[in-house]
Amino acid sequence: MEFLYGQHPGAPVRSGIPEHGRIPKYYAAKVEIAALLEELGEGGLLPAERDLALRFEVSRETLRQALRELVLEGRLRRLGRGTVVAGPKLEQPLSLASYTEGVRGQGREPGRRLVQLDRFACPDALAADLGVEAGDAAWHLERVLLADDERVGLESTYIAAARVPDLDTDFEPDSSFYGYLRERLGIGFGDADERLETVLATPREALLIGTPGALPMILIHRLSRDAAGRPLERVRSLYRGDRFSFTTRLG
Amino acid sequence: MEFLYGQHPGAPVRSGIPEHGRIPKYYAAKVEIAALLEELGEGGLLPAERDLALRFEVSRETLRQALRELVLEGRLRRLGRGTVVAGPKLEQPLSLASYTEGVRGQGREPGRRLVQLDRFACPDALAADLGVEAGDAAWHLERVLLADDERVGLESTYIAAARVPDLDTDFEPDSSFYGYLRERLGIGFGDADERLETVLATPREALLIGTPGALPMILIHRLSRDAAGRPLERVRSLYRGDRFSFTTRLG
Repeated sequence: MEFLYGQHPGAPVRSGIPEHGRIPKYYAAKVEIAALLEELGEGGLLPAERDLALRFEVSRETLRQALRELVLEGRLRRLGRGTVVAGPKLEQPLSLASYTEGVRGQGREPGRRLVQLDRFACPDALAADLGVEAGDAAWHLERVLLADDERVGLESTYIAAARVPDLDTDFEPDSSFYGYLRERLGIGFGDADERLETVLATPREALLIGTPGALPMILIHRLSRDAAGRPLERVRSLYRGDRFSFTTRLG
Repeated sequence: MEFLYGQHPGAPVRSGIPEHGRIPKYYAAKVEIAALLEELGEGGLLPAERDLALRFEVSRETLRQALRELVLEGRLRRLGRGTVVAGPKLEQPLSLASYTEGVRGQGREPGRRLVQLDRFACPDALAADLGVEAGDAAWHLERVLLADDERVGLESTYIAAARVPDLDTDFEPDSSFYGYLRERLGIGFGDADERLETVLATPREALLIGTPGALPMILIHRLSRDAAGRPLERVRSLYRGDRFSFTTRLG
C-alpha cells in the first residue's frame, strides 16, 4: 500500500500530500503538530512556538501558519496566553428540535444571550415566509448561542408579531423560544426546510461570537411551518465551524 | 429602524457592522463591492483592481483582502485573467440519492474523474463500518466530482470487496456508483447516517479539486446500510464551500 489505511477512517488520504510529492512546509509542520496533539490529548498544553519551530525545523512564520489552520479547524484552542488541544466538535442533530435540546443531548448546558429584540414592518421579501402581508408587524429576535458558557453561535429569528404579540414582555430571552411557543402559546412545529452552507463571519458577527474574523462558520437558513402547515418563522443560525458539526439520519 | 430590513432576508443584520460602529476598511470595501456585484449580475466582469481601489478609496492590499473574501464565499470567481460575478451556490439535497441525481435535479451535468481504485486489507477502525473482519479485502474508490465539467468536490468510497468483487473490471469509474450497485448488483440502500462539517482542504485535495488551499470546504461523512440493514459503505465527500449548499426537509 502506498498510503496509510491505519489512519482514522474519514481522514484525508495520503495524509493530504499531493501525488507530485511536494509538500508546502507549513503543511508538513501541521501534520507533525497534529500527531503531537494526539499524544497530548484533549486539554493538553501545546509547547511554546519557539520550541515547536526548533523541533520541526521551520520558521516562526511557517509554524504560525500551521497553528492558524489547526485553530480554524477546531483542533487547537487559544486559551488565555496558551494554546491547548481542543475536544471534538459538538454534533448537533439536524432536526425540528430546538438548539436547547440538541446541546443538552450532548451533555452540555445550553444558554442564550439577547442581542436585540425589535419590532419592524415586514418587508416584501420576508412577508411570504412569515405568512403576513408586507408592512405587517414582525419581530426580529437576535441571540448569541452558548454551550457551557462558551459563545458558539448567533441566531436571528423572524416571526409575525400577530403570532407572538407579547414577545417583548412575556418571553424570557435567555430561555428556549421553541419551548415558549409550545408551552405558552400551544404552537407546534409541522415541518421545516433548511439550507446549510459555509460562510465567513462578518466583523459584527465575529465580535458578538468572539471569533477571529476569518473563521469559517456554518450558516443554517430555516423556514418552518406550524402543525397546520402555515408559515411560522424564518431563522438564520450561524455556528462556529471549529466547534460544530451537524448530523442527520437519511431514510 | 436602525438597520436595513429591506435587505435580502437571511443576510447578516446591520450589514455586518459591529455595534461600536468601527468597520475594518477591507470590510467597508467588501460591502460596496457586494452592492456592485448585484448591479453587474451573474457572469458580469469586475472592473480592474486599480480602478476599484480608486473608486472605493482603499489601498490595493485592502481591496485584495475584500476580493479574497468574496472569492472564498463564492460570490466572485477567478476566470482566466478576469474576475466575474458568480452564480448562486448549487443546492444539493441531503438524501440517500446519489450525487448524480442531486446535480441533475438542478439542471447540471454530473461527472466524475477517477483518481484511484485500490484494494487493501481493511484496518480495525474501518471493519465494523463495512461489516467485515479486520484484514478482509476492501476497495477504496476515489473520484473527483464534476458539475458541468467544473471540478467541485472529491469523494472517497470504502466498501467490502466481497460486496463488489469485480469493481476494478466491471465498473465504469466515470459513472454513478449507486447506479452500478442498484442495477448490476441489485443492492438497494436502506438508510445512512451523515455528519457535515466545514474543513480546510489539504494541499493534495486543493490540487485535485483545483481550489486555493485556504478555501473552506464542506465535508460529509456518510455511513450507509443496505435495505436489510447491513453495513454497506463509508464515504467521505468533500465539496467546495464556495459552490455548494445542502438542503434538507425536517419533519
